[in-house]
Amino acid sequence: MSANNIEAMITNSLLVDNNPFNSTEELKNWIVQRNGEVKVEIEKIPFADMKGWYVGLDGSLHHDSGRFFSIQGIDVQTDYGSVNSWRQPIIIQPEVGYLGILTKEINGILYFLMQAKIEPGNINCVQISPTLQATKSNYSRVHAGKSPNYLDYFINAKPENIVLDQLQSEQGGRFLRKRNRNIIIKVDVDVDILPDYRWMTLGQIKELMLSDNLVNMDTRTVLSGLKISDYVSPIDSLSGMSDFGRNMFLSSTTNHSFKSIIDQLSWLTNLKALYDLHITKCDINSMPGWKNTDLEIAREDGNYFKVIGVSVTISNREIASWCQPLVQPMQEGLCAFIVKKIDGIYHFLVQAKLECGNFDVFELAPTVQCLTGAVGNQAHEKPDFYDYILNARKDQLILDTMQSEEGGRFYQEQNRNLLVEADENFPLNLPPRFTWMTLNQIYEFMRFNNYLNIQARSLISAISYK
Amino acid sequence: MSANNIEAMITNSLLVDNNPFNSTEELKNWIVQRNGEVKVEIEKIPFADMKGWYVGLDGSLHHDSGRFFSIQGIDVQTDYGSVNSWRQPIIIQPEVGYLGILTKEINGILYFLMQAKIEPGNINCVQISPTLQATKSNYSRVHAGKSPNYLDYFINAKPENIVLDQLQSEQGGRFLRKRNRNIIIKVDVDVDILPDYRWMTLGQIKELMLSDNLVNMDTRTVLSGLKISDYVSPIDSLSGMSDFGRNMFLSSTTNHSFKSIIDQLSWLTNLKALYDLHITKCDINSMPGWKNTDLEIAREDGNYFKVIGVSVTISNREIASWCQPLVQPMQEGLCAFIVKKIDGIYHFLVQAKLECGNFDVFELAPTVQCLTGAVGNQAHEKPDFYDYILNARKDQLILDTMQSEEGGRFYQEQNRNLLVEADENFPLNLPPRFTWMTLNQIYEFMRFNNYLNIQARSLISAISYK
Repeated sequence: MSANNIEAMITNSLLVDNNPFNSTEELKNWIVQRNGEVKVEIEKIPFADMKGWYVGLDGSLHHDSGRFFSIQGIDVQTDYGSVNSWRQPIIIQPEVGYLGILTKEINGILYFLMQAKIEPGNINCVQISPTLQATKSNYSRVHAGKSPNYLDYFINAKPENIVLDQLQSEQGGRFLRKRNRNIIIKVDVDVDILPDYRWMTLGQIKELMLSDNLVNMDTRTVLSGLKISDYVSPIDSLSGMSDFGRNMFLSSTTNHSFKSIIDQLSWLTNLKALYDLHITKCDINSMPGWKNTDLEIAREDGNYFKVIGVSVTISNREIASWCQPLVQPMQEGLCAFIVKKIDGIYHFLVQAKLECGNFDVFELAPTVQCLTGAVGNQAHEKPDFYDYILNARKDQLILDTMQSEEGGRFYQEQNRNLLVEADENFPLNLPPRFTWMTLNQIYEFMRFNNYLNIQARSLISAISYK
Repeated sequence: MSANNIEAMITNSLLVDNNPFNSTEELKNWIVQRNGEVKVEIEKIPFADMKGWYVGLDGSLHHDSGRFFSIQGIDVQTDYGSVNSWRQPIIIQPEVGYLGILTKEINGILYFLMQAKIEPGNINCVQISPTLQATKSNYSRVHAGKSPNYLDYFINAKPENIVLDQLQSEQGGRFLRKRNRNIIIKVDVDVDILPDYRWMTLGQIKELMLSDNLVNMDTRTVLSGLKISDYVSPIDSLSGMSDFGRNMFLSSTTNHSFKSIIDQLSWLTNLKALYDLHITKCDINSMPGWKNTDLEIAREDGNYFKVIGVSVTISNREIASWCQPLVQPMQEGLCAFIVKKIDGIYHFLVQAKLECGNFDVFELAPTVQCLTGAVGNQAHEKPDFYDYILNARKDQLILDTMQSEEGGRFYQEQNRNLLVEADENFPLNLPPRFTWMTLNQIYEFMRFNNYLNIQARSLISAISYK
């Protein structure tokens, strides 16, 4: 990124309150209005009736084009944890898609071009999404539809247009090694603003994240990679920040940390070396504990998630309808980071979590990440720090919102996102799979792809500096 | 790593000339002597006669334990390059092994405990190897043999003992997603020196690397991760360095680079997003272009490599014999970096190379990495910069040695390792798959696992500062 004062633009975008294009209130109303104008009908239909899709001999679900995505069975073998072997359905989508935000400087403020996007699985059908969400199938026109809006800006971006460009993972429990290209570009040319798009400041998007299910997962993951402190000059900007914001700024600039980066890398290397994760494909019809009917692939015990087939009809300015499988969660989820000041610096309590679809065995996850309904009542059945999170006092809650998973694959899936400040007497010593990291260390890992999982990134993106 | 002046120890180990335990001459003689004492007999035998191994129905080769390693067929599909589909045998060894060097400070100098190790495929049967080379099968005793020497030091290492601890890849054309734990520990306790081990300084090991095939690949990969400039205080040490050493030091400390790290990441993200690499297993008996006889799995055109079965007998103080498959190259290899001063700073001409066994599609490779015999005479058949490397004048050659691949898997495989200084008029603009990186950027990528391929790391490890 060439430096024609990108620092000031981004700082202003984060901290300056007024947006001459749309106030935050107007943006909220816009989403409410768009939700009112749109009618989404989801009808559960037999897999065999999904137009454009076929059911494989083994029960797997595939798009007729052979691309897009499929639902297949995997056999998981690992020497980690108490359950060393299981089978489950998983979403297979090997192509790297674009999650792209186009930005432009207008009068010294960087504006982000955001879309009010309808996805069939969204709880509130319209959510704020990146400028561009495109699978390789999309942009190579497997659907034979028109090219996604604004795609050309991304395809033609030059190095000097790139603000951020990282490969990041999706849910390791639901996707097999899925990654997206998280990209922010800055253009200097005129940009046509299409009806479903609005210019927003970074501060506005972060404020909208404080509402439940308003900013979609794709937006959150792209923005999570933007290390704010790279763009802030302490002299002119810290005064516009809240106390908490200044403390987060400090945590993301300091080299003063409880563990060195060499220690953190060694800790993770050790876990990756100690434990194996072997994934092979299996028949979806031969997964113990799962039943496969015409209508759904679901657990016999009703846990975790199920796969359903739906017919989607979206009535808007025009009518669109199609069929596709969706993954429906059976419980609500919880994603929570504990943060604690150590020697005056905020540290995040980070977990190394093995999930079957992870690209590299372990990824860095929030302190607690689980489905709440699946947690037993006995102490040994609960994830570490689970009770601490759920029993946190109100004054410990820095953030507490419900946030959605991607509505193009998941049916009304939401997770409670929590940032909890630890008490002073919270222990510094942690179980082996946990570590304390400064925000600076988290960003250093994030930069090098696939280290922070999507749940962790969602929480990082919500950090407010105002 | 706690800092009880590790800087000075490592600098001294790199630059101080005398080693009271063994001079460099004595170490060379020691290897010659060990080579004289050892007799290695390699007999090519039919696969079916390999004791402890079995041939699968599809022609694949497996250890009876089901662990260790196997030779299997893979089907490769990619939309990168001119050949988009092929099948080949590959070594499958999914476990992460240890490549570990134990170090200890003695009188202010850090000494590395190195082993004279015999491997069946070595050109000169004894090479200098890390303190510990152990697969997970080794140290979990699948062989029911005794525990590897010095293993306990590594297993019990505490964070304060860790100097370096990284997961790094092996040859992506020969291994399927193989990685090793490259680890250097520093201990303070007394260490028993077993007969085949010697204390060496870092400077001595680097000097021994100037001889052909003396320092094995495992040593080179472990040492490649040690960023010398992290341990050098300019005030007291630069004077002991050569001009070239000082220039390399500058390249590994400066933030002044031709491309920013954000540009480098975006360049690599773009390549990984653009191109797919799909690997599935296939019958080794159904690989077009390969023939599978009782004695070997080889290309019909005699190119690339073949798999052979051998009976190994090593007569030494005691006699050991076993059978195993080995991979035998059909041509000599060439691994060469071009370096060029840009604005006074050495930059390496780095290639992003797709190899079928890569963990993450592309890895960073030397400017030229190829089998020389397989290169055609027409300009379009030659890898970029191939002619430039081979036509380099003597005064451009910073390094020119033959170095071996790992003799436990490869039969007498060696690559010519070259560091070539570019002429002043060498172009700064590069083809899309190439970039200029400072040594500082190379080390930043190296730290985060799997970015630099093993051929690139071998060359980086050979950089001499004296």
